[in-house]
Amino acid sequence: MARTISILGSTGSIGCNTLDVIGHMGGREAFDVVTVTGASNVRLLAEQAKTAGAKIAVTADDDSYGALKDALAGSGIEAAAGRVALIEAASRPADITMAAIVGIAGLEPTLAAVRNGGTLALANKESLVSAGHLFTRAVREAGATLLPVDSEHNAIFQVLEADSRDAVERVILTASGGPFRTYSREQMALVTVESARAHPNWSMGLKISIDSATMFNKALETIEAKYLFDLQSHQIEVLVHPQSIIHSMVGYSDGSLLAQLGPPDMRTAIGYCLAWPERVRLPVERLDFVALSRLDFEAPDEERFPSLGLARNVLETGGLSGAVLNGAKEATLEAFVAGHIGFLAMSDIVGEVMVGLSDLGEPETIGAVIDADRQARMAAGELIAASRQ
Amino acid sequence: MARTISILGSTGSIGCNTLDVIGHMGGREAFDVVTVTGASNVRLLAEQAKTAGAKIAVTADDDSYGALKDALAGSGIEAAAGRVALIEAASRPADITMAAIVGIAGLEPTLAAVRNGGTLALANKESLVSAGHLFTRAVREAGATLLPVDSEHNAIFQVLEADSRDAVERVILTASGGPFRTYSREQMALVTVESARAHPNWSMGLKISIDSATMFNKALETIEAKYLFDLQSHQIEVLVHPQSIIHSMVGYSDGSLLAQLGPPDMRTAIGYCLAWPERVRLPVERLDFVALSRLDFEAPDEERFPSLGLARNVLETGGLSGAVLNGAKEATLEAFVAGHIGFLAMSDIVGEVMVGLSDLGEPETIGAVIDADRQARMAAGELIAASRQ
Repeated sequence: MARTISILGSTGSIGCNTLDVIGHMGGREAFDVVTVTGASNVRLLAEQAKTAGAKIAVTADDDSYGALKDALAGSGIEAAAGRVALIEAASRPADITMAAIVGIAGLEPTLAAVRNGGTLALANKESLVSAGHLFTRAVREAGATLLPVDSEHNAIFQVLEADSRDAVERVILTASGGPFRTYSREQMALVTVESARAHPNWSMGLKISIDSATMFNKALETIEAKYLFDLQSHQIEVLVHPQSIIHSMVGYSDGSLLAQLGPPDMRTAIGYCLAWPERVRLPVERLDFVALSRLDFEAPDEERFPSLGLARNVLETGGLSGAVLNGAKEATLEAFVAGHIGFLAMSDIVGEVMVGLSDLGEPETIGAVIDADRQARMAAGELIAASRQ
Repeated sequence: MARTISILGSTGSIGCNTLDVIGHMGGREAFDVVTVTGASNVRLLAEQAKTAGAKIAVTADDDSYGALKDALAGSGIEAAAGRVALIEAASRPADITMAAIVGIAGLEPTLAAVRNGGTLALANKESLVSAGHLFTRAVREAGATLLPVDSEHNAIFQVLEADSRDAVERVILTASGGPFRTYSREQMALVTVESARAHPNWSMGLKISIDSATMFNKALETIEAKYLFDLQSHQIEVLVHPQSIIHSMVGYSDGSLLAQLGPPDMRTAIGYCLAWPERVRLPVERLDFVALSRLDFEAPDEERFPSLGLARNVLETGGLSGAVLNGAKEATLEAFVAGHIGFLAMSDIVGEVMVGLSDLGEPETIGAVIDADRQARMAAGELIAASRQ
């Protein structure tokens, strides 16, 4: 019997891989697609909706409504556009929701999906970074099942034993170190958007590639890990592992570490979430350790990657600091992509914004989170503007 | 409430580590020791029995009875000696039995413990190598719980998911490669007992150290894995990993590999078995990946380590071939230690014996296994004698 599924952010890297995995799991025989959503790439969105037989396709971009409606004409698939339509479509009942919208923009639709109480495959890390306590409380209250899609958290989830939660001493999040792992600060000061988007191992979207280059991606993941697995700051370690083969590890009190390994192919983590608690057969590469020959490890360098230190500050202070970090980070990333600031200025400005907005307290509502995000963007915007004068 | 435990082979490396782990788990508060057994080291055996408060101490060595009885005088601990006494003591009810006698000598006592239906922590790999089907049938019939102590099989057990048994594609048994990993056959022809016993990573007894040097230890472990985890020959891979940090891995159909890692300290695997399904806190070293810096992998070389090819023959033919391989291997190892044959002659002779005794069929009884073992030893003895003329 087919299960119903909604894919929020279906035109992105995770969304496309999700549709590929669904194809390998039996396609329409196995999954009845409810909602697909995207942004301005309405051509791909309409094509996905038709191929998958979705009930509704939503573009987050108001201006793209006409184009989406035209592309779906005669298909019987509903078209909609804008923030409110996105949240409404995300809230339609589905056995599984793949929450793969990138950035804080994913928070409200993802929360709407949580409230259905089904299985939430979470790729939108900002939901946890910005609104950790509120988000996990919503998951509990809805009785939803939360499965992490990020390869690191998926790895941890795979090797976290139900009987031994008290015996977990630490989790080790591995990090490729990105394209500038071996760069000096002087070299990093000069890098371009093009070099920053060229991730050594993973094929991903622009934003997450640049987040990997600054290690803000790993910084966000440490915060995500705290809320997903109920960890203390000192239990979360980051380890640079350039080959991205060990996706993460859990250390137990008897000296054991359990790890999940695999090729850098997001379909494994996605398939794991869609098939859980069973496993699906996928045509991903099988690891050949003789060909790999070696796996390397080194300590992360917080001098060159200050994002990691900023994240630890969030891990320790909690409250709205995660929303502030993420809001400022998204604003500086846009400014870097637009050519308004240099590579190193991103973490410098985020750090300054966090100092300036350190007294926002605990959020009681999602509205407070969105307001902190907005304040952080404004503060970052002022610093970006000042740096250009 | 204390659980009862018997330790078969308590004076060996695994036995001593088991008593150490018991100490860290609460000692007599947590474990009520029933039986301890050893061989000629009666001084240590008596000391262990007194410290642990055992009910009975048994030496396998008939000639050591007097010395053991004297050493236990006044302690109230029963002393016994010989094969029949060993089997009787092993058959006394215990919640857990640590089966850590080395070699085929452990088969009958281990089987006696299985028949109690408690938890069997199995370190005696020969029980499975020589009598796989009969042994696993005895475990099923007794309703016993079988937990593997060998670090490789313990690793596999730790990451084998109950929900995904059908999704297991392969297990990868890691092997240090032993002290002669980089030796040519010409160099191997000349090695001494002293150099063969010097294992690079693990501190172990003489026999298992030499078995590691020939890779017969890994050969036995592939056969052990077949019976423990119900695998086909093609699902069992051996990977040389000189640092012995990844203790083994399980590969699933979605491309995931799950691995257990840890320092080379048997107390982790022992503690895992004694605490299962929970985990104990142990003062073993915690892995520091930055200090490790790298993990290496290479293919095993069956030209220089023919033991692995001989094991695959056993995996494919089954029947009594495992008993023949092990019996011949034990006989040649003794001859090597005695200085009667060279290092390379061990696998050569085992291979010859296996060709000569390839038609023994399926054993119906443990008696047939012991008879095959005896025949293999005799055949090996003849080849050893011939080689010395």
